[in-house]
Amino acid sequence: MILDIISIGDELLIGQTLNTNAHWIAKEMDALGLRIRQHISISDNKEAILTALQDALNHSDVVAITGGLGPTNDDLTMPVLNEYFGGKLIKDEQVYADIEEFVSRRGSDMNENNKRQAIVPDNCRVIRNKNGTAPGLWFEKDNKVVVSMPGVPHEMKKMMEDAVIPWLKEKYEFPAIVHQMVQTQGVPESKLAEMLSDWENNLPTTIKLAYLPSPGRVKLRLSSIGKDRSEVLQNIQVEVDKLKKIIPQYIYATENKKIEEVVGELLKQQNATLATAESCTGGYIAHLVTSISGSSDYFKGSVVSYANEVKVNELGVKESDLIKYGAVSQAVVEQMALGVLQKMNTDYAVATSGVAGPTGGTDEKPVGTVWIAVADKNGVEAKLHHFGNDRALNIERSAVAALGMLVKRVSIKLE
Amino acid sequence: MILDIISIGDELLIGQTLNTNAHWIAKEMDALGLRIRQHISISDNKEAILTALQDALNHSDVVAITGGLGPTNDDLTMPVLNEYFGGKLIKDEQVYADIEEFVSRRGSDMNENNKRQAIVPDNCRVIRNKNGTAPGLWFEKDNKVVVSMPGVPHEMKKMMEDAVIPWLKEKYEFPAIVHQMVQTQGVPESKLAEMLSDWENNLPTTIKLAYLPSPGRVKLRLSSIGKDRSEVLQNIQVEVDKLKKIIPQYIYATENKKIEEVVGELLKQQNATLATAESCTGGYIAHLVTSISGSSDYFKGSVVSYANEVKVNELGVKESDLIKYGAVSQAVVEQMALGVLQKMNTDYAVATSGVAGPTGGTDEKPVGTVWIAVADKNGVEAKLHHFGNDRALNIERSAVAALGMLVKRVSIKLE
Repeated sequence: MILDIISIGDELLIGQTLNTNAHWIAKEMDALGLRIRQHISISDNKEAILTALQDALNHSDVVAITGGLGPTNDDLTMPVLNEYFGGKLIKDEQVYADIEEFVSRRGSDMNENNKRQAIVPDNCRVIRNKNGTAPGLWFEKDNKVVVSMPGVPHEMKKMMEDAVIPWLKEKYEFPAIVHQMVQTQGVPESKLAEMLSDWENNLPTTIKLAYLPSPGRVKLRLSSIGKDRSEVLQNIQVEVDKLKKIIPQYIYATENKKIEEVVGELLKQQNATLATAESCTGGYIAHLVTSISGSSDYFKGSVVSYANEVKVNELGVKESDLIKYGAVSQAVVEQMALGVLQKMNTDYAVATSGVAGPTGGTDEKPVGTVWIAVADKNGVEAKLHHFGNDRALNIERSAVAALGMLVKRVSIKLE
Repeated sequence: MILDIISIGDELLIGQTLNTNAHWIAKEMDALGLRIRQHISISDNKEAILTALQDALNHSDVVAITGGLGPTNDDLTMPVLNEYFGGKLIKDEQVYADIEEFVSRRGSDMNENNKRQAIVPDNCRVIRNKNGTAPGLWFEKDNKVVVSMPGVPHEMKKMMEDAVIPWLKEKYEFPAIVHQMVQTQGVPESKLAEMLSDWENNLPTTIKLAYLPSPGRVKLRLSSIGKDRSEVLQNIQVEVDKLKKIIPQYIYATENKKIEEVVGELLKQQNATLATAESCTGGYIAHLVTSISGSSDYFKGSVVSYANEVKVNELGVKESDLIKYGAVSQAVVEQMALGVLQKMNTDYAVATSGVAGPTGGTDEKPVGTVWIAVADKNGVEAKLHHFGNDRALNIERSAVAALGMLVKRVSIKLE
């Protein structure tokens, strides 16, 4: 079963909105067992929509479309699809009632735009919108499916979960596709590829390998497809076990988990708690940790000490050491970690102090210089990193390196 | 001048990597004056690459390709392009030297993968890679340009800035394209559309309007194209001035600025400082504020008080009020804001306390209930919000609402 994804909207084309929808739909549909042929982003324009739709239907079984279903005049998807499938526009009473309820929950009355959104093609199956006003549309023709959803991510996601995925499962039978992730941290892609070249050359032809680098991490993805899911899983597991022997020091997860999820699981296993003291990461580590549901079980809090006076007053960093060594130093980052550990009475603490850039660098401590410390009741350790010139990347890499250091420290305890 | 963007990589297709490259390239090329026809993401597969390339060259003048240039065996872009343009693969000494320098800076030696990356087609202009090992490739044919860059975002970006954009400017002359953003916060899209319908119906035909909703915000984008840049700008400014009269209460910026940038500029104008006290946002507001370069001029720090004991010990929240009203309450969020204001001795403070979800909700305070407070030396104000069920969205909306409240408070001072 082959899938094409079409994203409609000038805001995507010109780069004012990042296309997270295609990414999310792809992940869900891939997990379901569809093979994704391509994603295409096109203009809010009748000809572009028709060309993309025809090309997609020529090559694929299922076409997922997002965008252009809003209440405003620049939204063309619904009339174009209605014309393509030769339908007639009618008022849908269920949709009208849904919109009325949605609008009233927000304390508003139905306006003309809202009312217009209850007009839908009569030859499609309507997908109710629980998080907004534009309904989704499910068309079938020649045993192929075209589904059109709003571009607002949480409206689209709810429709996929409640309707599109269950309806696809009713209609088609899916093969077993397995993507196994092996996630590494602290080693560059080319070095990893060299360490793994023998293993890679001996991989069975049924298993496909990909290197997926992101700041501070390289994910290895092993993919295989087959009829019998347990057999596919078993074949992949053999290779994962080999990897665990070749590069044990770099692997932090063998599932498609974020490093902050791994941190959470490890802390939960120990009934342990965490706090952070952040300078150059500015609260980003705390944000990553608290983005995980249930993190209040192990995360107590953070002191983001951007100003030096906050390092002194809130974390007990010695003013003399700030003067002697500077804020970006081993002495200071260690005191920050120990300070927050004690202050918030946690089992673990991480701390960062660095020059995120693009300004603030010196000859001695150029942009990208970052000290990271991890502390627990047995003491503190710190590591110096040299990242690059990009502020956002330096914050990201620092956070990942800090969480990586924490994973190692917590894992040793568990062994 | 028309542009097509081709992103190559199975990791994009199956949704394991979010395609930020197409978004970034689109934004840069749009600003340069290229009209972007489409983005397409395809498989690491010879036939798919050739089909997409041919289609792009049939419709566009410039084709920007990312991905598939890595050192590993799943990377096919370079050999496919070499074959398409009928070149011969040769060793490039400059590229070899660049790779050698890059690798040695990281404390490694050249391995076979690194060496292989110095082999490039002899009929293209090579783009040096300052942030990695894979060189970029610039081909020209029939007055059209095909440029191939690595998929690693910071490697691609550096190549675009240093080579692709300057080389395009040398080769072509560009028209004036203006996209003017008017950013609103605190009003839903359909209500906004209703308030603006008269104005929208009277827009000149040369100006195109789009509504771009994101959590807690709706951006209005006015777009126009013409020969004379100042004339285009002037026509758009007339409409922006009208908008400022119709919806002054919702507009927080008339540039394509993030709300955290607007906050930074307002604080700088006042020489004022900021601190945050965050419960449900878990450091995300601090992260947004510190993602802006130069934020150390006005941001002193944050106390992320996830645990109640941290609210009491670090922010001076009264334990009796925590018991009486609960952590998600006006009393507590106001004390958090005032506490951090005093503790960090800042001019402004924002605080959040809410139920991010998906668990932790009660009948009285369901998931999505969020209190937000803003404090300054004149006092504190708090507002109750009811967001939705999605944890990430609730964190995002809370942060945006907090920054929106801060923008209003700081702006009043400036009037």
